[in-house]
Amino acid sequence: MTELSLRGVFAPTLTPIRADLSIDLPAYTEFCHRLLEGGCHGLVLFGTNSEATSFSARERMAAVDAVIESGVAPEKLVIGSGAASVVEAAELTRHAVRSGCHGALTLPPFYYPGVSDEGLFRSFAAVLDRVNDDRLRMYFYHIPQVSGIPLSPSLLSRLAQAYPGQAAGVKDSSGDVDTLQGLHDVAAQYPGFAVFCGTEALLLRNMQGGGGGCISGMANVLPHVIRDLFDNWMADDAEDRQNRTNWVRDAILESGFNMIASLKVIVADQTGRPGWSHVRPPLVDLTEAEQGQLLARLSQPVPA
Amino acid sequence: MTELSLRGVFAPTLTPIRADLSIDLPAYTEFCHRLLEGGCHGLVLFGTNSEATSFSARERMAAVDAVIESGVAPEKLVIGSGAASVVEAAELTRHAVRSGCHGALTLPPFYYPGVSDEGLFRSFAAVLDRVNDDRLRMYFYHIPQVSGIPLSPSLLSRLAQAYPGQAAGVKDSSGDVDTLQGLHDVAAQYPGFAVFCGTEALLLRNMQGGGGGCISGMANVLPHVIRDLFDNWMADDAEDRQNRTNWVRDAILESGFNMIASLKVIVADQTGRPGWSHVRPPLVDLTEAEQGQLLARLSQPVPA
Repeated sequence: MTELSLRGVFAPTLTPIRADLSIDLPAYTEFCHRLLEGGCHGLVLFGTNSEATSFSARERMAAVDAVIESGVAPEKLVIGSGAASVVEAAELTRHAVRSGCHGALTLPPFYYPGVSDEGLFRSFAAVLDRVNDDRLRMYFYHIPQVSGIPLSPSLLSRLAQAYPGQAAGVKDSSGDVDTLQGLHDVAAQYPGFAVFCGTEALLLRNMQGGGGGCISGMANVLPHVIRDLFDNWMADDAEDRQNRTNWVRDAILESGFNMIASLKVIVADQTGRPGWSHVRPPLVDLTEAEQGQLLARLSQPVPA
Repeated sequence: MTELSLRGVFAPTLTPIRADLSIDLPAYTEFCHRLLEGGCHGLVLFGTNSEATSFSARERMAAVDAVIESGVAPEKLVIGSGAASVVEAAELTRHAVRSGCHGALTLPPFYYPGVSDEGLFRSFAAVLDRVNDDRLRMYFYHIPQVSGIPLSPSLLSRLAQAYPGQAAGVKDSSGDVDTLQGLHDVAAQYPGFAVFCGTEALLLRNMQGGGGGCISGMANVLPHVIRDLFDNWMADDAEDRQNRTNWVRDAILESGFNMIASLKVIVADQTGRPGWSHVRPPLVDLTEAEQGQLLARLSQPVPA
């Protein structure tokens, strides 16, 4: 893995599937190249927007292999390696390290609710110790509204202290400004510990606080707009650039449709490949009527 | 799989691990025989009390193989086959069917919260369709306080209608009397659809409502007491027998310690094998002081 801290705009890459639910690898690798050409610094394969946990460990590792074989430089990849089982998380993390990927984005075990910080420390430590490789860069994945498992600043500090270098940062998808600030405070104590936000809506705020960038679902459909904000976050008109990233997310939220299914419909439209609109259960494809409604809303002029 | 409906007392079998976190297969198979000799009609391997989701699919299947190879009749086994991924759940379920086990106890995908009944129907249907074997008996696993995913009576009715015979029943670990009653109403419409309660505290109530028995963590440590209630639920003193099942659960709840870690400490004490007290992260072993406190409480005379 590279020694540099991670910085930039990363897409938690959507995962195209066929009607039989298998991953459509040609469409997937093509999309990865499209996102990198479109402005993403790198990709997070198998994050929440990728429906990571809906695929088996074997499917996830085979898909990572296919992306690297297609010519994507592994140092541009961070691999979502979280699983309910720490043994499975270690297997996925080890595969990422050995494939030369920059790092891993790792969920805590997410089945049992209400686990202690001690239990979470032991969970991440079990993965780090089993992989036992100095090249590992682990980013801890904070998305309590989905995983049900908050990662406290004191837990992250303890990990940063116990695993210097390998405990490389955090992705905060809470969407909460105070939480993000608390993570900036952790990062200030551990130089090199990177903070990524999980929504591009907080990208400017995150950069101002010393963060590393964003890993945002919207980067799947608007990579260039988010990249423009990242490249110009110190410009006088940065607030305008921030506002320009909002319209797709606002339209989806307004529709009330599932975010992941909606993003896949937009990619189907952008790529001209209708098969992109499929999601794996327990998510449900948008109906044709819903797809039409969403695309009609997005075809309206973007507010200046 | 057997044609008979499942009835009786089943232990969601605790899973012993070594210090390196691997499953201690000799201790495991010995314990399975102990529970069957102690009064259990059968075993549920890899339920919530077994820390199922803390083990990889490969570890789970190898452990099931070891139990059958040790001489446990597969028709006495129900295999917890739930996973966050429907593909992995199908793999685990197929393995159970092909191993001759009575059935599978299947969680819904449990990563994404707030999924629709349509998404849950498609999830279970994906598993049933991929396994595609008339011998399959699937029990749907309702434990919303842990999984975060409630299974509604209308969802279960739809499954029972769409997969007659294969949709064999439900385990209700909600602990809620009204929920249990709602499931009895479903079962009344689909003869053969079995309702199990997840706490022995509702066993008498469940039998009176037409249910099939219980799959209860306490059956790991008190199989004979719970079996006595099952065998005599129509006796005049059934309420007394019900009350006699309560003391261990009450002591653990009073202690405030984690239920699974506590049950393992009790098994360590009962079997004289201290290694039994280990749990996998994210759970945390009880400290020696906590173990002493729990065992001292349990050594007091049981109220008549």
